[in-house]
Amino acid sequence: MQIDLAAIQKELTKRSAHDFFSTSRKEPDTFEILSGIRNGKTTGGPIGFIIPNKDVKSSHYDELDKLFRPSHADFTYYAKYGSEESAGKLHASGRFFASVIVAGGVARQMLSKANITIKAYVNQIGTVKVGKTYQELDLSLTDQSHVKCPDAEASEKMLRLLKQLKSKGDTTGGVVCCIVNACPPGIGDPVFGKLQSKLAQAMLSIPAVKGFEYGSGFGAASMTGSQHNDIFVIRKNKLRTLTNNSGGIQGGISNGEDIFFHVAFKPVSSIAKEQPGIDRNANNVTFTGKGRHDICLVPRAVSLVEALASITIADSFLKYRAYVEKNQL
Amino acid sequence: MQIDLAAIQKELTKRSAHDFFSTSRKEPDTFEILSGIRNGKTTGGPIGFIIPNKDVKSSHYDELDKLFRPSHADFTYYAKYGSEESAGKLHASGRFFASVIVAGGVARQMLSKANITIKAYVNQIGTVKVGKTYQELDLSLTDQSHVKCPDAEASEKMLRLLKQLKSKGDTTGGVVCCIVNACPPGIGDPVFGKLQSKLAQAMLSIPAVKGFEYGSGFGAASMTGSQHNDIFVIRKNKLRTLTNNSGGIQGGISNGEDIFFHVAFKPVSSIAKEQPGIDRNANNVTFTGKGRHDICLVPRAVSLVEALASITIADSFLKYRAYVEKNQL
Amino acid sequence: MQIDLAAIQKELTKRSAHDFFSTSRKEPDTFEILSGIRNGKTTGGPIGFIIPNKDVKSSHYDELDKLFRPSHADFTYYAKYGSEESAGKLHASGRFFASVIVAGGVARQMLSKANITIKAYVNQIGTVKVGKTYQELDLSLTDQSHVKCPDAEASEKMLRLLKQLKSKGDTTGGVVCCIVNACPPGIGDPVFGKLQSKLAQAMLSIPAVKGFEYGSGFGAASMTGSQHNDIFVIRKNKLRTLTNNSGGIQGGISNGEDIFFHVAFKPVSSIAKEQPGIDRNANNVTFTGKGRHDICLVPRAVSLVEALASITIADSFLKYRAYVEKNQL
Amino acid sequence: MQIDLAAIQKELTKRSAHDFFSTSRKEPDTFEILSGIRNGKTTGGPIGFIIPNKDVKSSHYDELDKLFRPSHADFTYYAKYGSEESAGKLHASGRFFASVIVAGGVARQMLSKANITIKAYVNQIGTVKVGKTYQELDLSLTDQSHVKCPDAEASEKMLRLLKQLKSKGDTTGGVVCCIVNACPPGIGDPVFGKLQSKLAQAMLSIPAVKGFEYGSGFGAASMTGSQHNDIFVIRKNKLRTLTNNSGGIQGGISNGEDIFFHVAFKPVSSIAKEQPGIDRNANNVTFTGKGRHDICLVPRAVSLVEALASITIADSFLKYRAYVEKNQL
Repeated sequence: MQIDLAAIQKELTKRSAHDFFSTSRKEPDTFEILSGIRNGKTTGGPIGFIIPNKDVKSSHYDELDKLFRPSHADFTYYAKYGSEESAGKLHASGRFFASVIVAGGVARQMLSKANITIKAYVNQIGTVKVGKTYQELDLSLTDQSHVKCPDAEASEKMLRLLKQLKSKGDTTGGVVCCIVNACPPGIGDPVFGKLQSKLAQAMLSIPAVKGFEYGSGFGAASMTGSQHNDIFVIRKNKLRTLTNNSGGIQGGISNGEDIFFHVAFKPVSSIAKEQPGIDRNANNVTFTGKGRHDICLVPRAVSLVEALASITIADSFLKYRAYVEKNQL
Repeated sequence: MQIDLAAIQKELTKRSAHDFFSTSRKEPDTFEILSGIRNGKTTGGPIGFIIPNKDVKSSHYDELDKLFRPSHADFTYYAKYGSEESAGKLHASGRFFASVIVAGGVARQMLSKANITIKAYVNQIGTVKVGKTYQELDLSLTDQSHVKCPDAEASEKMLRLLKQLKSKGDTTGGVVCCIVNACPPGIGDPVFGKLQSKLAQAMLSIPAVKGFEYGSGFGAASMTGSQHNDIFVIRKNKLRTLTNNSGGIQGGISNGEDIFFHVAFKPVSSIAKEQPGIDRNANNVTFTGKGRHDICLVPRAVSLVEALASITIADSFLKYRAYVEKNQL
Repeated sequence: MQIDLAAIQKELTKRSAHDFFSTSRKEPDTFEILSGIRNGKTTGGPIGFIIPNKDVKSSHYDELDKLFRPSHADFTYYAKYGSEESAGKLHASGRFFASVIVAGGVARQMLSKANITIKAYVNQIGTVKVGKTYQELDLSLTDQSHVKCPDAEASEKMLRLLKQLKSKGDTTGGVVCCIVNACPPGIGDPVFGKLQSKLAQAMLSIPAVKGFEYGSGFGAASMTGSQHNDIFVIRKNKLRTLTNNSGGIQGGISNGEDIFFHVAFKPVSSIAKEQPGIDRNANNVTFTGKGRHDICLVPRAVSLVEALASITIADSFLKYRAYVEKNQL
Repeated sequence: MQIDLAAIQKELTKRSAHDFFSTSRKEPDTFEILSGIRNGKTTGGPIGFIIPNKDVKSSHYDELDKLFRPSHADFTYYAKYGSEESAGKLHASGRFFASVIVAGGVARQMLSKANITIKAYVNQIGTVKVGKTYQELDLSLTDQSHVKCPDAEASEKMLRLLKQLKSKGDTTGGVVCCIVNACPPGIGDPVFGKLQSKLAQAMLSIPAVKGFEYGSGFGAASMTGSQHNDIFVIRKNKLRTLTNNSGGIQGGISNGEDIFFHVAFKPVSSIAKEQPGIDRNANNVTFTGKGRHDICLVPRAVSLVEALASITIADSFLKYRAYVEKNQL
């Protein structure tokens, strides 16, 4: 398979982009292919690559080695591994997921050959929510927004909120919405390989993610069956549904409608305010976050959600190619 | 390991229990051990068992073979497998999960030897929500409620709602809350084996589940970092947190606090009202659900959520036993 | 997929066949499909089945519970699981592999739709070896031989040897040769999914197997490169090799020639002679094997080798269907 | 866990060692840790490292791109991946396994903390075999032999044979014997995780390996049960066996005796003689191997066999730590 490495670099650069509300790296991440791609084509072997860390401020982290920061992984890494260092230096670092962007870029290009495309955007930051569904938005506007929100009005409000939070030294969370379209019916594997199950597993791997819902999600709990059922119709010789509460998945298998889901992120744990803490000798201390930290990482998480969705769908798609012969209406 | 088979049967019987809002099987499911347990003890080999289906009304399902029911897996099973039959006859059947209750019972008994206990209850049915957190409830009252809700007032309202829905031939969804307590710090594996990731995957395997959140969940999106951070304190010589927005998991690893999460269920798709549909010859038809169906399956799902949580935690717990030497504060 | 259940039963019956040198079960094993096949067709769901044990002589095994039999798994099952019983009652039982015959039958039928066929025969029993390669034999004669050896002369000698051993109360081992033909080039996955690696893993799962070699095997060690290299030629517009020391696999991937391998079996451990042993209280004892035991299980293992080869090749074949587009010379 | 990186480098250097019969790299391989080890200790995260390729002669390989070399993976990589290049440039390269030496070094150090040690040596090169069992040899002499054979007389003969082959431009194969000692009883998992099954899978992953046998191996086929059975005895309060035809494994689980196995290697396919071949346009050609190639790679494979055995045993050992409580006699 031909691989467009420049397109992958573009994704990686997008994730590294800095703004007033995000950390400021001096230069964007770059990746170097070590194996599996030669002359722009996959060889069939494992694709190995490296993203050098050009911009480490380890002295900052050295200071953090002494305490268990609240809502960070310092304590659990100590409990499990006996780590003597801040978890930020170890595999808890969000930077790990830069590599997922690259892997997701390969998966995305594989899917695009089958006309499957994946697009995510920011649907909520802090208390500001987009009041429209994804069908009512023009998703091509996402990248024009600093906060990756295609709704101009909400985008504006989000930026204002982030400015306020910055002045207070505080942070916030948000929600990303992701849409997989043109997925043919038949992808996903009951009983324990359901598409929603794989997507949830992938999304909950992102460090700050607290929740996942697909289609009608948590809202479904208060609906009735007659409201929620997606009525089948025939449109252009294909079986389609009038509504899409199913989120494009029925019985763990894609039904040909858009697959869409929401992912909730907690606020960034590192804040620029004084907080009480416990050091590694079990003493009470107070400390104030220093170093670079995002006020809100949700805009930067958009490409990560797309990358993980690409990997997940690609995986189930390959199984589908192995097993399925066409039976479509 | 000694296995209390009677305790497992009790779980299975609980799931089969019928009420005015759930299907009426004539007799509860029973299971028969085929291998892996001899004289009440595990042999170390695979545990095999069978749950005979005593109460099939296949003539009812035969009728359904002719159409694709809305929000059921009939169409996707046809698209993937070429199935000529209703998905309810195949592995889309919720009855599959009776076997998960048995498997979960074994896992639960293994965990209880390590003093880890797991308890779930109904937190919402349709529009009726419990207004308290799990800490404010007496979970020992759960089994006294027909709808498995330990809050007497909410339980009452839920029953009233279900009666109304029954009279209208409609159905609804709900939310289950589950708590794992006394889980020692150190369980769960970053990067792709995070405890929340495994739990999400397990919960989204349940047919009607539409969403998963742990700790602060979707609510975290609108909080600030200073609200959300769980401050560490020393209590009885242990590192604990003042609040538990982390839901007992930090960096994918248990931190010793209660692990808790919510699972959202959609309304039952089979309703007793006339609905438009498409038959397998692509003709428009109308049909009315017959046969036994739950008005709300959430009360019955409580033991399933507990069983899947038990399996998931047991799995990570065994890894923990292999790798971890004690480093706890 | 249509499944010929009668063909699978035939394989199972073949394995259960008794002769003077093998154990005498009163009736052949039969299997009952529980799930995954309806009206003779796969549903796409897990195929579940049961083979009831009609002919248990547990009193015999009860006696064995008291001692660790030499070269049996009694001691290791005790060391690992604390088993208080003979391993023959547990998952060490060779009877487990009856189920593999059924699973292999499904895989074999899948492969036969792609024109891939698998055939094994007995190449050695004790000191009697077939002096010809598989190409020099008429494999259609295998089933006519009581010992599953298509060479009439060797078959005769093997039977004579087994009669002698029976009179002495002793047992012996042997070698099975297996051939997969018409396997298209491209099946198998480097680096850790090599076809030979998967086949070796499968074959070494059979309880009495002590060795595996493919193509030139151990004989290759003493050859020179110029003897061993398989020269490529064009035959009927296909790239073929003049010799087949590669055993149909190069770089872990099938090359279109016959895949063939040999599997070595140890003698049956249960003999009808007095032997010294150690009982579970660490006392020295002597004991004499009773109950039914094979003098040589190699003839019965032929269908098991075929079944495991079918499962292994089918597995790699499905991956091949997912990934490979045609590039063949 | 503390990691001795220098010890790992020593293994890597050993593998890179050149002699008249092996390829001559200008400098030994070195590895650079990227993640997972900090200050000489494992962090609990994935251990990443890189071994830069300092000594590529790609012009030589470029020439090979035009043809399918006999008994190499050029054709099968073309059939599977459409590769336009020599497989030696891709993941078929034996150099991949340098990384396994590093991984094996980590596993070996983990096992040595549990007093499990692993040692391999060359037992055969071409037609020259060691006439003694491993118990009759002094394995500490292995590294003193250029061909890694602890038997001085055989070592001498092997060197003579390799000199003759070099003068003829030919190559040969051989056999490596490997011993795992002090493995406690209880390691390995029936039914499909048997220790011998995992070891066979690992060894057959090595590019030139054609066969695997453990304990009595292929020789068992011609033995009788009364010869082959390993009689149990009590020695120093432990259950031991008088002989070790079982090769330290019974029922797929270690029994406390030495685990030992043999691995057969084919001759190196690249020879310095003219051979007929087929080019990628299906033309008949003749060609002569150039560039650096081993006359026999078996001496260099010794550390690879040890590394793969270390990884395999470590894997099963971790499972053992999770599941087993002590029941040993």
